[in-house]
Amino acid sequence: MDMLVQHLQAALEQKNEAPLYQVLADTFASFINSGELEEGLKLPTSRSLASSIGIHRNTVNKVYEELNNRGLVKSVVGSGTFVNAPQKLREPPALQGTSAIPWNSLVSSIATAEPLTRYHRLNRYVGEGDYINLSRMHPSNELIPSELIRKCTDTVIRENGPAVFGYGSAQGLAELRQLISVELHRAGIPADKDSIIITTGSQQALDLVARLLCNPGDTILMEEHSYTGAINAFTSIGATIRPMPCDEDGPLLSALESVQPGSAKALYLMPSCSNPTGRTISLERRKELLEWSTRKGVPIIEDDYGADLDDESSPRAIRGLDANIIYLGTFSKKLAPALRVGFIISPVDLVSRLISLKQAMDLGTSLLQQYVLAEFIKRGYLRSHLRKIQPVYHNRRMKLAETLEKHLPAETRLRVPDSGVLLWLQLPAGLNSEDLFREALDYGVLVSPGSFHSVSPLASSGIRLTFCAEDETRLEEGGINLCKAIESLLHRAQSFTNTNRSAPLDGV
Amino acid sequence: MDMLVQHLQAALEQKNEAPLYQVLADTFASFINSGELEEGLKLPTSRSLASSIGIHRNTVNKVYEELNNRGLVKSVVGSGTFVNAPQKLREPPALQGTSAIPWNSLVSSIATAEPLTRYHRLNRYVGEGDYINLSRMHPSNELIPSELIRKCTDTVIRENGPAVFGYGSAQGLAELRQLISVELHRAGIPADKDSIIITTGSQQALDLVARLLCNPGDTILMEEHSYTGAINAFTSIGATIRPMPCDEDGPLLSALESVQPGSAKALYLMPSCSNPTGRTISLERRKELLEWSTRKGVPIIEDDYGADLDDESSPRAIRGLDANIIYLGTFSKKLAPALRVGFIISPVDLVSRLISLKQAMDLGTSLLQQYVLAEFIKRGYLRSHLRKIQPVYHNRRMKLAETLEKHLPAETRLRVPDSGVLLWLQLPAGLNSEDLFREALDYGVLVSPGSFHSVSPLASSGIRLTFCAEDETRLEEGGINLCKAIESLLHRAQSFTNTNRSAPLDGV
Repeated sequence: MDMLVQHLQAALEQKNEAPLYQVLADTFASFINSGELEEGLKLPTSRSLASSIGIHRNTVNKVYEELNNRGLVKSVVGSGTFVNAPQKLREPPALQGTSAIPWNSLVSSIATAEPLTRYHRLNRYVGEGDYINLSRMHPSNELIPSELIRKCTDTVIRENGPAVFGYGSAQGLAELRQLISVELHRAGIPADKDSIIITTGSQQALDLVARLLCNPGDTILMEEHSYTGAINAFTSIGATIRPMPCDEDGPLLSALESVQPGSAKALYLMPSCSNPTGRTISLERRKELLEWSTRKGVPIIEDDYGADLDDESSPRAIRGLDANIIYLGTFSKKLAPALRVGFIISPVDLVSRLISLKQAMDLGTSLLQQYVLAEFIKRGYLRSHLRKIQPVYHNRRMKLAETLEKHLPAETRLRVPDSGVLLWLQLPAGLNSEDLFREALDYGVLVSPGSFHSVSPLASSGIRLTFCAEDETRLEEGGINLCKAIESLLHRAQSFTNTNRSAPLDGV
Repeated sequence: MDMLVQHLQAALEQKNEAPLYQVLADTFASFINSGELEEGLKLPTSRSLASSIGIHRNTVNKVYEELNNRGLVKSVVGSGTFVNAPQKLREPPALQGTSAIPWNSLVSSIATAEPLTRYHRLNRYVGEGDYINLSRMHPSNELIPSELIRKCTDTVIRENGPAVFGYGSAQGLAELRQLISVELHRAGIPADKDSIIITTGSQQALDLVARLLCNPGDTILMEEHSYTGAINAFTSIGATIRPMPCDEDGPLLSALESVQPGSAKALYLMPSCSNPTGRTISLERRKELLEWSTRKGVPIIEDDYGADLDDESSPRAIRGLDANIIYLGTFSKKLAPALRVGFIISPVDLVSRLISLKQAMDLGTSLLQQYVLAEFIKRGYLRSHLRKIQPVYHNRRMKLAETLEKHLPAETRLRVPDSGVLLWLQLPAGLNSEDLFREALDYGVLVSPGSFHSVSPLASSGIRLTFCAEDETRLEEGGINLCKAIESLLHRAQSFTNTNRSAPLDGV
């Protein structure tokens, strides 16, 4: 016990940011867990321990309360506080080693589909170092209002207690759906709360819609380069993805005309800031696409993941023009991915089926996170936050574009859209996007190769760049280093071609 | 402005639990939002406003800071604080009314499968009233340690800031997997952190495993009554569920012998406290099932949702005997559903494919919630919490069982297992579980009809009862009322049979 008192005093002197009682409880706990204070030992009264180590008695009481919460002491009324040492670990038995289960023949065909393996294939090249991240599409740390989210969480739990910790409805918290409805109204998208279904991020919204619409073998229309998560979701349900030819303003009407009614389950689109190419479809083309959809009976799935990330320069969402659009939204990009809250605005006819499927998939999105987000929106924090990040993203786009335009070799072509969070870099014919991905890693830069976002499992010569995750200084540095990587790759490709003209570049 | 000061003073007098600055900020905000304080209006200095309403200047500064967070005021250095009124709503256009999209022909066959509609079919009978809930399997409010979770959340966000708000790895937070590994070790289940995959509740774990193993049309073996969420998950992937005959100790080996190698993808089991019947399989039968699985090459999916809810009376998990078991765990029942954290212990051969599928489904479980749970376990709160709830559940089981045994009509048969959180009530032949479900609602009691958990879409004469959600007093009251409902239904059925012997009971 004397040893403990000495350690507690030492802990007091080294005290850091954590509350005093936590620091002392940690020291105390390590003595109990190591067995130095044995089971059943009576602890000194708080008064006596307080005077031994020279702190207030109330603090010792808080330490004992914390130890009680951790199950390390037990109070017995009228006799005092006793050590309640943890049980010793029971050693698990040695397990049978070799497998009699033929796993390879048991795995489903979707689980082995090529698109699902892309992430792993690329990610294993990425080391632990400090890369300048031109790939990651979520906000950099200084743009995540963690302190405000903490406050909202604290209020929500204090005011509601255990009620926010149960299962919610599979459709989602009504109050949150109502608040989202008002936000959508503000953006010119009419959607009442009954047509909104809350999902665990918009990735799950995609998975949900894929399962709602597709039997294995059904066809989904997409652009040739599209969101890898959408490719995965439709692949996971066994759908066939048919790429549609596009111009700079989205899918070509002439190509869509050849689609027979009943031959495709939907057209999947990101009308604003398409991932990965960054192109935004004009209002006129949006109206033409809508007319095509209505005439052919092929619905449009509108993924508006980047909504509100720039000012009002984007055309109105297609869902703002027609109530039969399946619209997907998310708070991952405009607020914080870890909330895992996205949503679907559903055509009336599909709502109850989407809810049943959502129930089957995860019983509903975290009620706590939904309450926290509702509090965040209700207080007006969201709108204020968006007004803060919009100019930051605008300036970053300008900085990255300027840097690249200054340093890029003439053989490349850069597309800088007026809005959104993506730039698209077209490499010279013959240069492979995954080769550049690996080369850029050596220059300390992370980029997203077009092959990762390609509907066809073909090599792609495009690179997706984003500026979400880095500040202007690092964007400039990253842009310069990326250009060096491209020069280096070009140089190697040219000298290779000069010495061995018959071999394909992919063999380099 | 004078009006505002009066309202602020009035708010001061009616002050409730919320912090002072929040109350004042709310009042202030309503003045700005309503337009009573117009755009650009200069606000009084904090010193002057503080003296007008008689509070400390620091509080007024906090009010202004909060209004700034909400985006309702703007500070201009050297000139003061100004109202920054919110933009007016832009009216969305009227939307096209009627649908040209043939939704019914577009919906997938799984989305219309019968099991997925059960929840809705039953739930529409349930009104808003205060039912005694013998159906809900999550902890009652007094058993959810919301204050401790709040503390952990607060610490985690304060100490890590924005870092906990990003996307995590699809496999899950390594620290949390390590902590779960230690907890499993304690329960005699060896599992290193690399074999663990974190999921959004164990419902998603089921969905994930179903997609990993099943092509549409593949066969999954289950008991005749099984977890409705498992039935949904396998239905959603288009699998065929084949019910296995059982005795009181689980699936019959004689029946399993007829399963040909390669003809089934897995046997899904809840060895401890099977949902809905409550039966726990003996250690001997567990070993026989394992031997069968190894010999036939048909894997076992072990759903251990109720682990740690009672003391050590259950036999060791089958995953404690063999590393080829696919094991599913969850923190929804033992801690709080809204954390939405479950996990899979995967055989080595399946880990990377499960991670790829998980990535495709939702990009990973909320990083924040994983950090919070890790903190909760690390502090020792979880073990202490479990020691607290185990005797409570034990006493509730006794109370509900005693009450029912005293009041049940002789025609029924009640099964009270030694462990777990479920009782199973067998109604007399001819009584339908959904009829009793509806009758019990009239008596203010919610129960879960066997038909909800039945693999075959047949009427069931069993009722699942749980005591998780109610205290002993309400359990007694609920038990008595349930018995009255059964008497009433029996009475009606008998008088109906007496007057019209030829009609089936289902027609009542």
